[in-house]
Amino acid sequence: MSAAVSLPSASAPDSAPSAAERAARQAQVVQALSAHLPAHMLLWHAEDTTPYECDGLTAYRQRPLVVCLPETESQVQAVLRTCHALQVPVVARGAGTGLSGGAMPHALGVTLSLARFNRILSVDPVSRTARVQCGVRNLAISEAAAPWQLYYAPDPSSQIACTIGGNIAENSGGVHCLKYGLTVHNVLRVRGFTVEGEPVEFGSEALDTPGYDLLAAVIGSEGMLAVTTEATVRLIPKPQLARCIMASFDDVRKAGDAVAAVIAAGIIPAGLEMMDKPMTAAVEDFVKAGYDLTAEAILLCESDGTPEEVEEEIGRMSEVLRAAGATAITVSENEAERLRFWSGRKNAFPASGRISPDYMCLDSTIPRKRLADILLAIAEMEKKYRLRCCNVFHAGDGNLHPLVLFDANDPDELHRCELFGADILETSVAMGGTVSGEHGVGVEKLNSMCTQFTTEENAQMFALKAAFDPAGLLNPGKVIPTLNRCAEYGKMLVRGGQIAHPELPRF
Amino acid sequence: MSAAVSLPSASAPDSAPSAAERAARQAQVVQALSAHLPAHMLLWHAEDTTPYECDGLTAYRQRPLVVCLPETESQVQAVLRTCHALQVPVVARGAGTGLSGGAMPHALGVTLSLARFNRILSVDPVSRTARVQCGVRNLAISEAAAPWQLYYAPDPSSQIACTIGGNIAENSGGVHCLKYGLTVHNVLRVRGFTVEGEPVEFGSEALDTPGYDLLAAVIGSEGMLAVTTEATVRLIPKPQLARCIMASFDDVRKAGDAVAAVIAAGIIPAGLEMMDKPMTAAVEDFVKAGYDLTAEAILLCESDGTPEEVEEEIGRMSEVLRAAGATAITVSENEAERLRFWSGRKNAFPASGRISPDYMCLDSTIPRKRLADILLAIAEMEKKYRLRCCNVFHAGDGNLHPLVLFDANDPDELHRCELFGADILETSVAMGGTVSGEHGVGVEKLNSMCTQFTTEENAQMFALKAAFDPAGLLNPGKVIPTLNRCAEYGKMLVRGGQIAHPELPRF
Repeated sequence: MSAAVSLPSASAPDSAPSAAERAARQAQVVQALSAHLPAHMLLWHAEDTTPYECDGLTAYRQRPLVVCLPETESQVQAVLRTCHALQVPVVARGAGTGLSGGAMPHALGVTLSLARFNRILSVDPVSRTARVQCGVRNLAISEAAAPWQLYYAPDPSSQIACTIGGNIAENSGGVHCLKYGLTVHNVLRVRGFTVEGEPVEFGSEALDTPGYDLLAAVIGSEGMLAVTTEATVRLIPKPQLARCIMASFDDVRKAGDAVAAVIAAGIIPAGLEMMDKPMTAAVEDFVKAGYDLTAEAILLCESDGTPEEVEEEIGRMSEVLRAAGATAITVSENEAERLRFWSGRKNAFPASGRISPDYMCLDSTIPRKRLADILLAIAEMEKKYRLRCCNVFHAGDGNLHPLVLFDANDPDELHRCELFGADILETSVAMGGTVSGEHGVGVEKLNSMCTQFTTEENAQMFALKAAFDPAGLLNPGKVIPTLNRCAEYGKMLVRGGQIAHPELPRF
Repeated sequence: MSAAVSLPSASAPDSAPSAAERAARQAQVVQALSAHLPAHMLLWHAEDTTPYECDGLTAYRQRPLVVCLPETESQVQAVLRTCHALQVPVVARGAGTGLSGGAMPHALGVTLSLARFNRILSVDPVSRTARVQCGVRNLAISEAAAPWQLYYAPDPSSQIACTIGGNIAENSGGVHCLKYGLTVHNVLRVRGFTVEGEPVEFGSEALDTPGYDLLAAVIGSEGMLAVTTEATVRLIPKPQLARCIMASFDDVRKAGDAVAAVIAAGIIPAGLEMMDKPMTAAVEDFVKAGYDLTAEAILLCESDGTPEEVEEEIGRMSEVLRAAGATAITVSENEAERLRFWSGRKNAFPASGRISPDYMCLDSTIPRKRLADILLAIAEMEKKYRLRCCNVFHAGDGNLHPLVLFDANDPDELHRCELFGADILETSVAMGGTVSGEHGVGVEKLNSMCTQFTTEENAQMFALKAAFDPAGLLNPGKVIPTLNRCAEYGKMLVRGGQIAHPELPRF
């Protein structure tokens, strides 16, 4: 691995730095940071920085110039001040479980690992909040709140490992976000530092705060606006009961329409997931969840609340699903059975890993009513690109996770897989959706942002970033594509037709 | 009224424009706008523009250069494009009920009245949303949703007249926002135009939207970032039942502590209001609400929900209030009695108007536990400034509305009243609160922003505004004070001690 690995970064140097240039810069940065951090918090030898070369998006790798592992806020402040003075890019990193390369290092930058900020500062059962450091794991919050029958709702699949700081950066979702919202709906306050090392707070534990309300803008900003060190999150009471319906359909269109019908009936299930036949086949072989292997698609549809609420909602949902053409309906009779239903869904990714050397997970969204259309479009793409695709969707909120199966060691398959992925994203946008539901843009979807947004919209997002980080030192080269990059991408693409832009620009 | 009235505007010209300069500019703007608007949508004669010279903050008045009354989005776009091309300031205006001068005209600017955007576009009882034009009155939304037993929750006192566009600009609250949130918690999507006349959307009807999440930043931005023309709002089911407790206290400290005790017990009342003895005396004389005139302070504490929930919550709240030292507790036995309890609170402002030629309403916030402290501090200020003050507080969320009574025709009283108001705001900030809870900053609290925020914080807010409006044409001179203005304000003030800044900068 060398610095010559080309960064998919908009603001990366035109040519990669030479080894000598990199070494000189490294010595300068290490020396400056040594004044503030003890030796064990500072890594720069290749064998020490290599573990940080990528996050959950392993296709792109880059050793950072330096890794810092601060333990206190004043050390974070010192790192930021030092980097700002030297104009060194800073990439913040939590657990490194992100799927879009948001924590991928910069060749000439510092990776600021916040893993040691792992303390739960307080749990307040009366106000139903927890104050936690940014490196606390998502699931650890719920564990700490469990004695009061409370929990933190957003549940990304990586919740056993991913940190709340990373969740804030990516505005993470999860199976239950249809009912309980994304990170942005469950975080009250974010504390951290600006690129200059100034302490800053967004939001508050009160209903409102003075000044512009930038909490929502910072959540999901992928480390581009500020560095988070602490957060106050909302806790909610554990539902008394949860039950899950497994419904089979002999036709993907009927299954897609059933999802739209459930929501149109005014029901917000606690979770509403869809898997197609190739996906259930792969999963069933792995975890024996008891899925109907004859179905073209199955839905998992959960209700939670008091026993009375669950009984009523399960009844109404079953009715809607039956009317929509479900060929079989099974309702979990106990917690063990409910967990078994979910075990399949939660193991969809590893199950795909068992049947293919590699897979690429997409994350686009579409309006619910287009679920069947996108499934049929993906089926056509399988023929066009000669690759298989398993589909597992957060169907209730229209968030797709198609898993394109390929072999990364076959350059032609890799290329076809990339085209397949881009096609899914562009088709999603054309159907009125977006390129990312919950995994973030990072480096992965930078090109697709050219499809999603106009030049003016991307310029506007740069202007907003510049209000926080004029020199562009925080996580540069990610999330927002430059005009040049979009022009290049347009040239690269061989497009069948027009790209459908949303009617209105949106920030 | 002439253009020589000094604007309390940070970016107002150093010297007021001469009558000739103003007339020339007016002719130029009118001519340019005439190309896009029919004659009846364009006002510039003094007798036509004078009705627009102020909003609900009548102390500051300024005739606008021109008033536009567009009826379509393309006309709004044309007005903005024209003004942008000529670099003319634009002040958007709804019903003009704002209390902080947010819609006060600019001497050389266009007032963009959106009063004619008064159509309810759709009510969707299944998704529980309404799509409305910006000029729709707050109460009209609830009226349109009433057939489905739904309503729009935020209820500013002006709700019969104020518009949703104005509510969005000010992030309006109301008596029930303690439980149901402010405007920012009840609006899903805002559609409008940038200063350049480009269409723009913030938020969406889905859980999330691509790009930076700027919906919350735009809500409460007081017309400084964009012009709103349409919104999608959340509707919620009308509670089956509401009952209200009236509790008397023989000591303001006990009443203040009782408010903190209710919240600390984990109860979020539908409303939790506090009035002191001078206020209840003024009110009772006016509307005969049945208030306890022997009490030093009374609390109104409401519960709503199903009959079972209300019964349980009223029981728990009564217990907490009794333990906190309430000398009498009355619970409304029917809807008529409940409305009678509230009639006093809702008529607090006009009741003050009956006992004093003028009154100034403050709007600061404090942490709930400091309620008694601020009441005692205000009592001291009454002696210091030799003016009376009636106190009516949204106590549950720590939002104060002290009403300082004075005679505007007595310049010394006016001056003392201004000092009294500034003292309340600064004392609130020193106690850990803010200068504005729900009325906005506008022109009224521009100086107090120098107390609330540091120079760097105000500069940061300007940077954010510049990302949307680089030339500063949208509602200039309001909300964010310039460095010069704060320096001037510091010189003007005779201060007893240090100004307590919050520990951390906040946006």
